[in-house]
Amino acid sequence: MAANGDESLIIVMRAGATSEEIRHVLDRLAEAGAEAHVSEGAQRTVIGVVGDRIRIQQLPWEAFPGVERAVPVLKPFKFVSRDFQSEDSIVDVGGIPVGGGHFAVIAGPCAVESRDQLFRSAEAVRAAGATILRGDAFKPRTSPYSFQGLGEKGLELLAEAREEFGMPFVAEVVDPRDVELVTSYADLIRVGTRNMANFTLLSELGRQPKPVMLKRGFTATIEEWLNAAEYVYKEGNHEVILCERGIRTFETATRNTLDISAVPVLKGLSHLPVIVDPSHSGGKRELVAPLARVAVAAPADGVMIDVHPSPETALVDGAQAILPSEFADLMTQISAVAEAMGLSL
Amino acid sequence: MAANGDESLIIVMRAGATSEEIRHVLDRLAEAGAEAHVSEGAQRTVIGVVGDRIRIQQLPWEAFPGVERAVPVLKPFKFVSRDFQSEDSIVDVGGIPVGGGHFAVIAGPCAVESRDQLFRSAEAVRAAGATILRGDAFKPRTSPYSFQGLGEKGLELLAEAREEFGMPFVAEVVDPRDVELVTSYADLIRVGTRNMANFTLLSELGRQPKPVMLKRGFTATIEEWLNAAEYVYKEGNHEVILCERGIRTFETATRNTLDISAVPVLKGLSHLPVIVDPSHSGGKRELVAPLARVAVAAPADGVMIDVHPSPETALVDGAQAILPSEFADLMTQISAVAEAMGLSL
Amino acid sequence: MAANGDESLIIVMRAGATSEEIRHVLDRLAEAGAEAHVSEGAQRTVIGVVGDRIRIQQLPWEAFPGVERAVPVLKPFKFVSRDFQSEDSIVDVGGIPVGGGHFAVIAGPCAVESRDQLFRSAEAVRAAGATILRGDAFKPRTSPYSFQGLGEKGLELLAEAREEFGMPFVAEVVDPRDVELVTSYADLIRVGTRNMANFTLLSELGRQPKPVMLKRGFTATIEEWLNAAEYVYKEGNHEVILCERGIRTFETATRNTLDISAVPVLKGLSHLPVIVDPSHSGGKRELVAPLARVAVAAPADGVMIDVHPSPETALVDGAQAILPSEFADLMTQISAVAEAMGLSL
Amino acid sequence: MAANGDESLIIVMRAGATSEEIRHVLDRLAEAGAEAHVSEGAQRTVIGVVGDRIRIQQLPWEAFPGVERAVPVLKPFKFVSRDFQSEDSIVDVGGIPVGGGHFAVIAGPCAVESRDQLFRSAEAVRAAGATILRGDAFKPRTSPYSFQGLGEKGLELLAEAREEFGMPFVAEVVDPRDVELVTSYADLIRVGTRNMANFTLLSELGRQPKPVMLKRGFTATIEEWLNAAEYVYKEGNHEVILCERGIRTFETATRNTLDISAVPVLKGLSHLPVIVDPSHSGGKRELVAPLARVAVAAPADGVMIDVHPSPETALVDGAQAILPSEFADLMTQISAVAEAMGLSL
Repeated sequence: MAANGDESLIIVMRAGATSEEIRHVLDRLAEAGAEAHVSEGAQRTVIGVVGDRIRIQQLPWEAFPGVERAVPVLKPFKFVSRDFQSEDSIVDVGGIPVGGGHFAVIAGPCAVESRDQLFRSAEAVRAAGATILRGDAFKPRTSPYSFQGLGEKGLELLAEAREEFGMPFVAEVVDPRDVELVTSYADLIRVGTRNMANFTLLSELGRQPKPVMLKRGFTATIEEWLNAAEYVYKEGNHEVILCERGIRTFETATRNTLDISAVPVLKGLSHLPVIVDPSHSGGKRELVAPLARVAVAAPADGVMIDVHPSPETALVDGAQAILPSEFADLMTQISAVAEAMGLSL
Repeated sequence: MAANGDESLIIVMRAGATSEEIRHVLDRLAEAGAEAHVSEGAQRTVIGVVGDRIRIQQLPWEAFPGVERAVPVLKPFKFVSRDFQSEDSIVDVGGIPVGGGHFAVIAGPCAVESRDQLFRSAEAVRAAGATILRGDAFKPRTSPYSFQGLGEKGLELLAEAREEFGMPFVAEVVDPRDVELVTSYADLIRVGTRNMANFTLLSELGRQPKPVMLKRGFTATIEEWLNAAEYVYKEGNHEVILCERGIRTFETATRNTLDISAVPVLKGLSHLPVIVDPSHSGGKRELVAPLARVAVAAPADGVMIDVHPSPETALVDGAQAILPSEFADLMTQISAVAEAMGLSL
Repeated sequence: MAANGDESLIIVMRAGATSEEIRHVLDRLAEAGAEAHVSEGAQRTVIGVVGDRIRIQQLPWEAFPGVERAVPVLKPFKFVSRDFQSEDSIVDVGGIPVGGGHFAVIAGPCAVESRDQLFRSAEAVRAAGATILRGDAFKPRTSPYSFQGLGEKGLELLAEAREEFGMPFVAEVVDPRDVELVTSYADLIRVGTRNMANFTLLSELGRQPKPVMLKRGFTATIEEWLNAAEYVYKEGNHEVILCERGIRTFETATRNTLDISAVPVLKGLSHLPVIVDPSHSGGKRELVAPLARVAVAAPADGVMIDVHPSPETALVDGAQAILPSEFADLMTQISAVAEAMGLSL
Repeated sequence: MAANGDESLIIVMRAGATSEEIRHVLDRLAEAGAEAHVSEGAQRTVIGVVGDRIRIQQLPWEAFPGVERAVPVLKPFKFVSRDFQSEDSIVDVGGIPVGGGHFAVIAGPCAVESRDQLFRSAEAVRAAGATILRGDAFKPRTSPYSFQGLGEKGLELLAEAREEFGMPFVAEVVDPRDVELVTSYADLIRVGTRNMANFTLLSELGRQPKPVMLKRGFTATIEEWLNAAEYVYKEGNHEVILCERGIRTFETATRNTLDISAVPVLKGLSHLPVIVDPSHSGGKRELVAPLARVAVAAPADGVMIDVHPSPETALVDGAQAILPSEFADLMTQISAVAEAMGLSL
């Protein structure tokens, strides 16, 4: 009779709900194998529910006659939570550990445009101390008239750069039909902000062995983001890195509003590594350094930064790319704050 | 020498920008075939740019030394704009016209769960006056533990219901690999809010002949939404219906905030039909009727409403589904307001 | 021992909270005269609390060691709730009833600029069917360089217009030091969006007899708005009208996003009349008519509309003012939808 | 003929605007002493306007027939901008410099509750290295049933604590009628988030000599915030400190979303010092340390932190108060990051 689990849902009946309506809810709870704690108040009856939280939370309680609202007490995700695993996950990206005190610096061009552009960027960021290369071959763009990426040719260039400079690389996958292609090249597979809730893509990535970087959706809550990570994790791929990249607010001075609080909040809720993208958050070159320093002080488990040898000719997001020389200067700043924080770069 | 087009972009130089920096911008404009109108002020130089707006707006002006910001004057979309086509588009959905004064009532269950559930819903909404059936076979869900739809079996049931009740139907496609499957069954293909910026999917849908209903992203601006429609349109499919379904705000009393102003704003900017989804906007049964009436008064070109014979057993979004009897009552209200508005149901 | 009231708060302990921490919370609850229902789960202890909700909800439970979060079950406001009074409040504005099926049309210039401007507006809106005049003498403006209103001279002109055209009028009060002045002239006192949380001003207005119109703050939740109304009500003034005027979102195509769902949500939570301001919501002349119709279909208890004889010379918000002739046309539309809704104008 | 100034506004005419409509705009510009640069495009006429930006931007251009929109090119504020003063302002708070590389640590209880509570807090934060004391005597509270502060008695206690511990203090003023009272006691006058747009209060504070700390409104844009600062500055009080305290977004895991990007953005736009309030941003004790570190790394010009000897008995915001021992530990962290940043505490 005793249900297994915690009180995971509170059902608040309307003032004036009839005893038949209350009975009806209790019957359905019993059918679902849940235990109910009923509190009859002066105006309202409140029911605390113990049982399998995922099963219980999904039933449409607010559709029941007499129910005012159903308030979840426990989070709807499981494997990615600190409750499930208390120690920090450390994700291995082509030999580079990310998380658990290992701070990763990922840098390179937003999109691969040419061999020369990629190699100049990679050489520079390697020399300055970055350990993972970024560069995309497939770009989802707001306008259909924008450059959409070099496709497989871009991945080939990235693989060449990996050999040349000894850095694993991260690249975005946009289409579930490209998962096999991208995973055959890249060391870390990125899911972009527009695809955070592309559950088809997430499930595919859960069924292959390369680690996954999951960017937060423009307006995803932290809870929805962790649910998206759960899609990957539950399919068997436990190598997931979260990437905060700014959320949409009413403020127009920045492209997005970096939600730096998400870093400590996630550290409380989840064991997954969390990195920050200062480039796409602010959307402006002059904001990259302050936001990168901020990420170290939070501290996040890494940063990912757009570097371009000639931002004014960039085909994608040139306004936020910094020059190789600016990146070298930024590495000095990152190192200083990281040292103050006791982090190993 | 004279550029073809309108002044489509304003480049504002920083206070103190050097004449070399200004010259550099002008040179690049000349290379891009654009004409520049330079206004040298007391503190700042401002450059008005005439030329191909899509080409010009995409260059990363804010990455140029000395540039403070670049302000677009004209919209970045083209085919879906009123400037391109002044008269309203009317989309044919299996014989039912939508737009241009034809108000469509689309109704049915959120997800197809069984033959019985679908047919009871379809029969009821048909009897009450709905002209297009809704019902999904593929459901993108926030939690990986939620019901994800019946797949092709669901589409078969929908096709059966179409025959039985004489109503074309709309169904969602989630995965670009399913486009051929879904379009082989459905009369109107829906792109859900999570996929509004799934440009791969949009482009695929632009290359097939069935009309497309494009829901607004949770936090898409109206401009981004029209850009997404442009993805479909420019591939050759001109049969696009927009669907407002609420945006994400700080308000928690409703699931989303219905942005009813988007209807008249879109009517000014675009020739495409616009419908409203009162069910997913508010997320609560008691809000469906007020929000549906509001849509008629805007006026939108239609509404899409979740109806379920037994909301409390619904596998998806039961809290917002109304009963067949409530739908019949709502049709009376819709008809009254539509008549006041001079619309034909 | 038995606490009086409903289960109004749920305290969720952290996984791993000690028995001392739980005991400490229970001791404090006992001191506060509350009854506790303890549910010990597999991972967490959850405590349902019965007692005086206002007293209990205000204690800083999340500051207690071992507490993860405290979830309010009941709303924090009392007198303005439907639970407190089930029938609709009807507010008398200088002889004009608002609420309970009486739909009010309030119209006039945003700010009083001159006798001629006010009288031309008042005459026109009266002729077209408005029953309450609007016009402000004190204007809170975003920029210190903008026109701030005529002050008492403006109130005198409004009082003259009331005599001349037989319409009571509404005017804003901005400063608590002006409450006596404004209430000595106006029939309905408006609290603007920037002052919704000016609790000093609200309390002052609660201690005088004229009815109060409380606009929603730019980013107030519905719950905060009702709390603000409670400030007025609890001081003894029960004549409160709520005015929805748009909230701040990421959308930039409109000045604000009209949250039309707030109307039915408020009708569920509160007995107070709710009106809509289509002019300040959209901020554009062409949106006034659609948003006014929408307000009638919700239905709200009234609309308030900016009308100006010469919008292009308006000192405040000219972009959203409609002409007297446009207002007359709008009245026809409002009447048609109101008739369909069974409302009396 | 030549207007004095910069091109500060762009007026975009509608496609199809008549030559009369364009002429009418140009006439009005001429009347206003502005110079117009007309660009006639294939579809639209665009007019660049040179003249007094404040006068020009305030005219209701969007109310003119044929005008599609008016796009401001320059910011609407003046004295608080970097254009007006290029070097950082340094504000003197009772002998403590804030800004220009001087990092201020302000700490103490949210509200003054008793002599014992205040003195225990003040002694502890002084010992740990804070240089300015915080504590409020007037508290604007969301609920009318919450503690509203001790009033003048609280100010007396703060003045006593100043003597005892040798720290100047900051206190909030809520009501313009209390400006004289509060300024007679406090060293720094705070305007709270709910009053950022209380222009009456701002103007009063501009006409007295004590420095002012202006918190950002819940949903104020950075531009509106600077406009509010301009209200104080233009009345003659140049001692203004800005305080970022989180903005309202859809995220519910935190009380507000700290907009850390606002710090570097403000440093670009304005010469005023900017501090951060980590306590009210996150609203949770465990977020205070990460958000304070982040503020140092930005770098802001200071932090303001709630410290309470017994958070669980706090009458205001106990959930976000940290203990004196936690504050001492935080000072160590702040010092480490400040040293890495080259800041003087």
